[in-house]
Formats: sequence, C-alpha cells, structure tokens
Amino acid sequence: MDTHDVRFPTSRELDGSDAMNPDPDYSAAYVVLRTDAPDKVCGHGFAFTIGRGNDVQVAAIDALRSYVLGRTLDELCADPGSVSRDLVGDSQLRWLGPEKGVLHMAIGAVVNAVWDLVASRQGKPLWKLLADAEPEWLVRQVDFRYLTDALTPSEALDLLWAGKRGAAERESALRQHGYPAYTTSPGWLGYGDEKLSRLAKEAVADGFTQIKLKVGADLQDDLRRCRAARAAVGPGVRVALDANQRWDVDQAVQWIRALSEFGPYWIEEPTSPDDILGHAAIRRAVAPVRVATGEHVQNRIVFKQLLQAGALDILQIDAARVGGVNENLAILLLAAKFGVPVCPHAGGVGLCELVQHLSMFDYVALSGSTEDRVIEFVDHLHAHFRAPVRIRDGRYAAPTEAGFSAEMHPASLAEFSYPDGTYWRADRATRQEATQ
Amino acid sequence: MDTHDVRFPTSRELDGSDAMNPDPDYSAAYVVLRTDAPDKVCGHGFAFTIGRGNDVQVAAIDALRSYVLGRTLDELCADPGSVSRDLVGDSQLRWLGPEKGVLHMAIGAVVNAVWDLVASRQGKPLWKLLADAEPEWLVRQVDFRYLTDALTPSEALDLLWAGKRGAAERESALRQHGYPAYTTSPGWLGYGDEKLSRLAKEAVADGFTQIKLKVGADLQDDLRRCRAARAAVGPGVRVALDANQRWDVDQAVQWIRALSEFGPYWIEEPTSPDDILGHAAIRRAVAPVRVATGEHVQNRIVFKQLLQAGALDILQIDAARVGGVNENLAILLLAAKFGVPVCPHAGGVGLCELVQHLSMFDYVALSGSTEDRVIEFVDHLHAHFRAPVRIRDGRYAAPTEAGFSAEMHPASLAEFSYPDGTYWRADRATRQEATQ
Repeated sequence: MDTHDVRFPTSRELDGSDAMNPDPDYSAAYVVLRTDAPDKVCGHGFAFTIGRGNDVQVAAIDALRSYVLGRTLDELCADPGSVSRDLVGDSQLRWLGPEKGVLHMAIGAVVNAVWDLVASRQGKPLWKLLADAEPEWLVRQVDFRYLTDALTPSEALDLLWAGKRGAAERESALRQHGYPAYTTSPGWLGYGDEKLSRLAKEAVADGFTQIKLKVGADLQDDLRRCRAARAAVGPGVRVALDANQRWDVDQAVQWIRALSEFGPYWIEEPTSPDDILGHAAIRRAVAPVRVATGEHVQNRIVFKQLLQAGALDILQIDAARVGGVNENLAILLLAAKFGVPVCPHAGGVGLCELVQHLSMFDYVALSGSTEDRVIEFVDHLHAHFRAPVRIRDGRYAAPTEAGFSAEMHPASLAEFSYPDGTYWRADRATRQEATQ
Repeated sequence: MDTHDVRFPTSRELDGSDAMNPDPDYSAAYVVLRTDAPDKVCGHGFAFTIGRGNDVQVAAIDALRSYVLGRTLDELCADPGSVSRDLVGDSQLRWLGPEKGVLHMAIGAVVNAVWDLVASRQGKPLWKLLADAEPEWLVRQVDFRYLTDALTPSEALDLLWAGKRGAAERESALRQHGYPAYTTSPGWLGYGDEKLSRLAKEAVADGFTQIKLKVGADLQDDLRRCRAARAAVGPGVRVALDANQRWDVDQAVQWIRALSEFGPYWIEEPTSPDDILGHAAIRRAVAPVRVATGEHVQNRIVFKQLLQAGALDILQIDAARVGGVNENLAILLLAAKFGVPVCPHAGGVGLCELVQHLSMFDYVALSGSTEDRVIEFVDHLHAHFRAPVRIRDGRYAAPTEAGFSAEMHPASLAEFSYPDGTYWRADRATRQEATQ
C-alpha cells in the first residue's frame, strides 16, 4: 500500500470557488494497493480534499495499512466488503468518527481502491461488475446497521431483483447513449459575468440541458448572475443553484424566494449538511424549487433521515465522502426505496471518474431510470487520469476500461505531489526569488 | 505548541469495556501551548481517543499549528473565541468535516488549550471565569451559525442575564457542597457479577445516588446484571443503562422494554449518535425510561435537532468531542432554551477534569439548577493530572486551581507517550522476550 499527497493549484484560477470555499486547491489523498499477481494488478482510490489538511487525510489512510496488507486477491474478489466491515467495525478507530470525517473518508479511499482492484482483476468496469452481480451477493456487501427501520435486507433484495428486469436493454441503451450530465463549469463564484455568460452558452451548445451556478455570498450579485445565466441559456435549460451551506434556515428561505423569479431548478446545500430538520423546513417553504444535498453528508444514517424527514427532492451521492462503494450501495438502495432521484456530486479531483460508475449501475440494475437524473460534470483535471470521463452531447459515455477509473498517471503524481513534486518545488523557488 | 501521543494500557483490565468497545486503550492527543510570558504560563488541551488512530488525531492537531502560533496573550484573553472562529472558519480545513470527526476534535483540543491558558492567566478556574463573564462577552464567544432557527443571540443573552440572578448564592452553595455525580465504575461490560455487585455497593456507601451499567451485548447477560445491580443498590438508587450505540431502532425498543422491570432511569446511546429521528422514535416508545445521548454527538447542529425533535430527556455534553468550550457554550444555551437537563459524559482520560467546569458554570450562571443533573464519574487515570477531580460524598468538589484542569504530569507523559515512553518500551521488550 502506497499513499500520495497530491495537490493541484486550482486556487490560482478561482476554479471551484464558491460562497464557502473561496480558494480551493483541489487535492487527493491517494492510495495504491499493489499485488504480486503475475500481471501486477493494482487498486487505486482517494479521498478528495481542497488543500490544507490533505496531509492529515493521508495520515488517516496510512493508519489503515495493517487492515489491508496480506489479504489475497481471491478473498477480495469473493467479498470486497470484508475490508469495509473490518475497517468500519474496528472499535478503536470507530471512536474517531464514528463513520464520519477524516477517518471515514480514509476508509472510503481504501474501500474504493479495493473495488478498483476487484473490477480490474475481473476485467470489467465497476458499473458493469455491480450490474452483473447476484442480488444476494450485493445485499451482503451492504451494512444495514442503523438502517433497518427504513430499509431491511429483504426489501433491498426485492429492489435488486426488480432491477434485473430489463437490465440488458438498459445496458445496451447506456452503451449507446450514455448517461445525462449537467455542468457547473460556468457558475463558479469567482468568475465574472462575461465569462459566466460565455461558458453558459457554450454549455448549451455542447448539449447540456442543465447548468449550475454558485450563490450565497451576496444577494445583489446573485440576482445579477442568475439574470445573466437565464438570458444566456434561455427558458428551456434548467438552472440549478448551489449555496454550499452558506445559510441558516430562515435566511435560506428568504434568499431562495428572492431568486425564484429566475426559475431555479434546485437549490443545493442551502444550509449545514448536518441539518436534516433544517433541510425539511426549507423544502416545505421554497417548493416548487427542489432541495438537493449530499456531497457533504457523512454517511448512510444521515441520508436515511433526510429521506425519512422528506427533506430532499434530489439525493446527491459523492463517491469519496462516505465509506466507499459499499456504503454508496446502501445509499442508492435507500433512494430507490423512497423513490428519490440520485444526481451525484462530482468535479474536484476524479470525482466524475468515480461516481459515473455508481449512477450507471443504478440505471442498469436498480432504479432503472435516468428520468430527472443527471451526473454533475466539471471540466477540470481529467487529464491526470488514465481513463478520464468522456462526455458526448452533454452525456457521460459508459466507461469500457476495467476498474473504477481511479488511476492517476504516474507523471501527474510526480508533478503535483506535495510538497516535493516538481510543480511545488518550482513554485517555492519562484516565490523565494520574488521575495529576494 | 507541542503535541504528545499519550496512551494508557487500560484494555489489560477491561476498564472501560462496553458493547461496542471491548478493549479500549484510553488515550489523549495532548497539546501544550507555550508562551514567553515571565511566568511561562501554558495552556493544555487534548482530544480523547481509545487507542489506535491516536496518531492521526495528533497529526490533525499538528496541522493547526500555524493558526495559533504568534498570537498574544492579551489577544487571547480578550477574545478566546478568535481561535475557534479562525479554525472552524478555514474553508480548506472545513472540507475535512465540516465540524465533525478527527479535524473537529483537533480544533476542540486546541480551543480548550486556549481556554486553559486564558483561565490560568487570569488566575481563575474556568467555571468561575465563565460564571463571572459579562453575558454580552459570552454571547460573542458563541458561533450561532446554523442555530438561529432554534436560538438567536438575543435569546441567548436573555438566558445569560436571567442566569445572573442568584448566581452569588449558587456559587457559594457550589463551593460548599459541590456538584452531584454518578458513577459508571461498577458497570463495565467486562466485569463479572461479583465485581459488579461489590462495586455497586461501594458506590452507594460512597454517597452516589446513581450508578450506570453497560448493556447491549447479550440480553440474558443484561437481565442477570441488571438484577444483580438492583439487588446490590436497593430501590432508592437510580440505575442508568448505556448501550453505546449497539442497537437499531426497533431492536433498541424491544431490548429496553425487556429490561424495564428493573426500573432503569435512563437508556444512553441506544443507537447511532447520528440518528436524530431514531432517538425520537425510541424515546416515544420506551417512556417513562428516559433517553440520553451526546458523548458522540459531533456538533451543536445535531444537538439542536435532537432538542427540536424531542429526541432527548437528558443531554450529555462531552468536553473533548465538539469544537471546545465555545461550542459547548452554544450547546448549554440550547439545552437551557429547551429546558433539558445536561448530564455530562466523562471518564476516559481527563474528561471528568474538563467537563466539571462546564456543568458548574451552567449551575452558577445559566440553568441555575442541579435538579436531575449529574456529572459522570469514573475513577480511572486521575492521578496523571496536576489538578485531579475531587469527589466527596458522591459529588464533585468545585476546582479552586486556576485553569481548565487539563494539565498532565510531565512524568505521565514520559511514561505513557506512544510508542517511545518508558511503559511502552518496557512492554515491547517483555513481548519480544516472550516470543523468543
């Protein structure tokens, strides 16, 4: 097991800037599981952070080393969930969460690396491996602890067997047409109106039927930016808004009502991701504007309650926030049970690459639908991945490469490893010269 | 700023064993803020963990170094909350929570060390410093973000001014009689029935009017242990139960009902600390048994919702889980607003030493009552602290030493630092001999 602290200097261009995150340096606490198989097959995974603290995230992954070393490929292929269960179930590590924050994201990185390894070994893209799996096997991959008041294993099994009906046709449709996407590229808070309008028009020309704007820093700015965006895309394109947790409950309601003349499709993260009851209150007050959240929701237990409380119109999974594929299976099952569409969070570093597999599995073999479902797309940093996402006509093309699309190029690791990669060394040298 | 990874081998005696934590090694990720003041006054704080991962917790504290170095004592004394605001508000670090898990506990450790420093500098125990403070100043120490739908700054100010009435009399009573305690020492899951009965009788003889038993691993064992405990203490002593998050919602209800014949006073942590709606459902089903939780509740936002949802009879703050004194002030204010008694979690390493200050402040200058309020007491590891708690007749004596009672003896650090303290070196040598 190798770990890497990889940081990209995205704050220089205000890519990714929003009301809570003015200057993110998109980063990955990256892990590689090596094997001594004849083909040297590896597994890759990562936690996504936005800069400072990525070293802490790497330290947390390093702390999990003894839980994965020495396992056999056969054991992992038969039951990838064994790693998830051992890590989540370790009582001493559990104290550091439980099931939340740095330690849980570290578990997610390692668990995702195991799934990348397993899918690579089996020669299938992850979405296809999951879609082909026996429902009984998939149910055993899920930890139902704390879920059974909302979803039992036997209900999950029924959902998965129902998802098998028509799966072959949907797989064929997916391979032919891909999966719908929307784009956030026009809407970063640090972009000027001209850039916003230009990128919004480009998005429509590129085939996207939904864009997203960051809001929440200044209401007058938001009114102006929403007007510019709506003018750029016309009435037929969905414009979603994202407040990145900026507001308290009452403030959220007032702000969203003020922006409602521009017909926003959803409001994302109007308040704290921990505030289940707050999201429910906001949703009641701002309908028909939809409420979306999930990228910072810490685990399946909070998602369960968001669904139980009727707090969500749209559930946004993130591939690298929770405890990996196994926990995201639980969350997809919960969403299917409650009939709420899943529109994943992506962007950052490699989040598009990962999460597309989960939505594609969901379409082929669980919810069976792409209606009102879109995967976020942001056009940053894909070139660092060996199997980058492919977008055609505003849709994600189904990955055909084996694995979870998590592998970064060795050259990217060498350049952007922090603090000793070539980029950061050169950056320090430049700064030192400037101060001399 | 110095940090230490301190671990005590408590698993050897099954001290602290419960249904979720069979073998904890009570540990502290300990931080010391040094100054160049003439008297070399220092601040001490820590996060509490139960062993593995304490190194990750230390790494997280180390990542906060640049946020505290170079501040002046005058600045900190005027506004200790400035450190809390800068740490919680850092957008890049925030991504690692937000406000939860390893990073948030690290913030709590540093913020508590700042308060230890400030109280030491001002020559007062922390409870007295807080009780003497101007309500306007205290309100400025609180982060109301995400709370205003339940508690506004002006409501908080009203509560604190109301708390000033009679404060002098209560301070005098506190100094004379102390603050009520209960003890968990008899009830660890790893103890046999004979040890349980003996310790329970000793607890009553020592003046405690409430004890607590760990439950949740095996129902037949729990029935037997509850029977033994009730027989040992008689009908007039409260017996609280603690499941340490072991159950799903429906299972919790069934298990608690099965134990209700022994008249349990409260059931603590019946399910996941993240499950607000689950706690509310359990509470509705098991009344008159009270529901208590909080030691693993990640922040003020979850406490807010537990209160809004009517999920709690008893709110259990922990001094070292959330973001330090500032966030615990918010939580005490929320509890006062909702009229729910606070019975802190303690035990572990130094948690009794810290949390007594918060309850004593609450009694003197906020809720104004000790009715149905007890601080947990566990008689472990106090000797490692310079100002250990003092228990008399089942009550905590009010600390008289300046500070937050967080300072450990240098000799304890030298012995139990991991992995190079004298205890752990000798332990490794013994194990190596045994395997040779």
